[in-house]
Amino acid sequence: MVDIATRVWNHKWKIDPIVRSLIDTDFYKLLMCQSVFRNRPDTQVTFSLINRTKTIRLAELIDEGELREQLDHVRSLSLSRGESTWMRGNTFYGKRQMFTSEFMDWFENLRLPPYHLEKRDGQYELTFEGSWPEVMLWEIPALAILMELRGRAVVNQMGRFEIQVLYARAMTRLWEKVEKLQGNPDLRIADFGTRRRHSFLWQDWCVQAMNAGLGESFVGTSNCLIAKNRDLEAIGTNAHELPMVYSALAETDDELRQAPYDVLSDWHAEHDGNLRIILPDTYGTKGFLDAAPDWLAGWTGIRVDSGDPATGAETAINWWKERGEDPTQKLVIFSDGLDVDKILELQSQFAGRCRVSFGWGTMLTNDFKGLTHNDTLAPFSLVCKAISADGKPTVKLSDNPRKAMGPEAEIERYKRVFGVGDQAEVEVVF
Amino acid sequence: MVDIATRVWNHKWKIDPIVRSLIDTDFYKLLMCQSVFRNRPDTQVTFSLINRTKTIRLAELIDEGELREQLDHVRSLSLSRGESTWMRGNTFYGKRQMFTSEFMDWFENLRLPPYHLEKRDGQYELTFEGSWPEVMLWEIPALAILMELRGRAVVNQMGRFEIQVLYARAMTRLWEKVEKLQGNPDLRIADFGTRRRHSFLWQDWCVQAMNAGLGESFVGTSNCLIAKNRDLEAIGTNAHELPMVYSALAETDDELRQAPYDVLSDWHAEHDGNLRIILPDTYGTKGFLDAAPDWLAGWTGIRVDSGDPATGAETAINWWKERGEDPTQKLVIFSDGLDVDKILELQSQFAGRCRVSFGWGTMLTNDFKGLTHNDTLAPFSLVCKAISADGKPTVKLSDNPRKAMGPEAEIERYKRVFGVGDQAEVEVVF
Repeated sequence: MVDIATRVWNHKWKIDPIVRSLIDTDFYKLLMCQSVFRNRPDTQVTFSLINRTKTIRLAELIDEGELREQLDHVRSLSLSRGESTWMRGNTFYGKRQMFTSEFMDWFENLRLPPYHLEKRDGQYELTFEGSWPEVMLWEIPALAILMELRGRAVVNQMGRFEIQVLYARAMTRLWEKVEKLQGNPDLRIADFGTRRRHSFLWQDWCVQAMNAGLGESFVGTSNCLIAKNRDLEAIGTNAHELPMVYSALAETDDELRQAPYDVLSDWHAEHDGNLRIILPDTYGTKGFLDAAPDWLAGWTGIRVDSGDPATGAETAINWWKERGEDPTQKLVIFSDGLDVDKILELQSQFAGRCRVSFGWGTMLTNDFKGLTHNDTLAPFSLVCKAISADGKPTVKLSDNPRKAMGPEAEIERYKRVFGVGDQAEVEVVF
Repeated sequence: MVDIATRVWNHKWKIDPIVRSLIDTDFYKLLMCQSVFRNRPDTQVTFSLINRTKTIRLAELIDEGELREQLDHVRSLSLSRGESTWMRGNTFYGKRQMFTSEFMDWFENLRLPPYHLEKRDGQYELTFEGSWPEVMLWEIPALAILMELRGRAVVNQMGRFEIQVLYARAMTRLWEKVEKLQGNPDLRIADFGTRRRHSFLWQDWCVQAMNAGLGESFVGTSNCLIAKNRDLEAIGTNAHELPMVYSALAETDDELRQAPYDVLSDWHAEHDGNLRIILPDTYGTKGFLDAAPDWLAGWTGIRVDSGDPATGAETAINWWKERGEDPTQKLVIFSDGLDVDKILELQSQFAGRCRVSFGWGTMLTNDFKGLTHNDTLAPFSLVCKAISADGKPTVKLSDNPRKAMGPEAEIERYKRVFGVGDQAEVEVVF
């Protein structure tokens, strides 16, 4: 029996818009948004898409009309009643009413601000300007749209069986990863793959496969819509965006030196427990920890998001010891460039020395590497970052010089202020 | 949108009965049935299921009630108008009206005769008795039902994701076989996998994948229902059943010696072209060919179905040469124990020396080897054979003593009559 109505409905493209909800985004975006809404609501920012993989000429692969259609669709979205209920009524990290009434009232009425789109040198220049709490919510939808439209452009060239076998292979590959991770009851892994997912439906499948295969070891997903739909924990804390914008707003070198701690001081006032996770690498982990105030050592853990992960974890453990803390009670979250072997290696290296957790992104939700001729579906390095705040440029250094961004002169100034010396380069694949 | 009616309909098991049509069978069964209907309609035969893989205790795996339900369902089937139209109107091997009006009138009114089912030593004893043209049509449905019920029993123990990944792996594996076969434009392969298929839906998928991936190299399927539904050629000629029953009916050693040639004499009167394919191994290929009348050398080809396939082909080529025929104009069909590497090996060995074609069975439609823990879905050796005709036992020797069947004394008598000496044993996996 063919359901004719379903078939006709399927003919309308909106059956699978790439972003289908304002909460089809990372949980930490909403947490940070609330923090920004409370602490810096009037800051004017510009976010911009940056394709670090120049060889992938997105403007040649992706039709501009389709891209605009998908971006316009996101602008038509508003929080649904069920989504609002989920955010207001849910327990996040064991805490009720994580989101305040003030924030929810504002969020319920939000529509995303306009975008600006141009083609240049085979790439799309996609920027968003406006007040920080509004503009910041474009980051994840913009990335997900570009990634998925690129995937659709490739898949559109394939035959029916090629497509079926493509997904059969990708499923087989992911399940083999799940099987490799099984039998490690102490593992704790969350899905952090929204921004570079192959597609929404694929991320949803990956999350369900992880949940079915790993049980307790799968702790949840950063994607709020999937967490809601699949009754899972929403996972996440904070990101580089906060210190980057706070730092850009600093008037003097002294204020700049203080800015990353101001971020965490604001955060400290709002959150406790598992939400007190330090992201120390924005301007170099070592210097950040050395100059950190003592109250930061009392936080729950550290997220290692650039540089060599084992080195980052050792740095954190040593720092806790220096500050008289017991590292075995502390949480280290690895979230950069992970795949199964790296996860298992880090787990066996640090289990028992600290609490270990993994935020697994691209290679969970977009491992199509080698699955098409000429590797046309391989993940690539696309980011969407705050590039200026109140007219002043932002800077990011991280623990890997290849991830540095900002005007050259400002990078040098930041390096001087934060005492960042030579750094080891690590290839950025995605 | 959920189509409620479809969901409710799905709750009734008949949505996927294992055998869903009287033409969900091998094409050669219908060809042979017509020949039997014409030449030996009153012969009374007994067919019996034989599980050569004793370690697989089917009666412990498969519920008797379910088995009876499926067998009863087959007895409820009759030829549909569309199926009859397809058989009457279609061109088979370039010939119209392959099936006579007399045969079609009879077939349209046919219901399969009763079955007899008992459990013994962990196995099912499943037998069919009655007139030959009716009973013979039980072979393929009986095998397909047992194979698929065993598969369903295994899959019923698996979780949703395990099942999804199982099929993803099987699809990936089959597609990799298809890719391996690509780029050999002279290859000619047909699906011969109905009897030991994993399931109807899986065979249907495999056939479509072969068709999509191999183009001209995929010449069709032995399954009439799939050939009809997918608009493909129905492929097949004749089988051991004919010489086995003709031989059992022989009154004297001389008649016995003549019986296999009587089969082909009847066949010769009915068919020409690609349907004139000799199956020489029932009582030993060498002796059969040496004693064959000259008109048989004029036939189109030989099917090699037991023993070492290269040896069988060499024997055929030498025989044609001895009889003054040009082997390069003759067709050799390999149909025993094939998988991709063997196919490619035989193709490169015999291409140019004769016309080569492959009837690919079990490893096309049931290669689930190694895909479950303890290999619970590995194909096994199940057959359904004529064991007696008019009360006299049948005998099969073939070119592999492990495939021999019949009472010990009769086997010895047949070996003497047909001059079969020592034979090389080849393991029978399926």
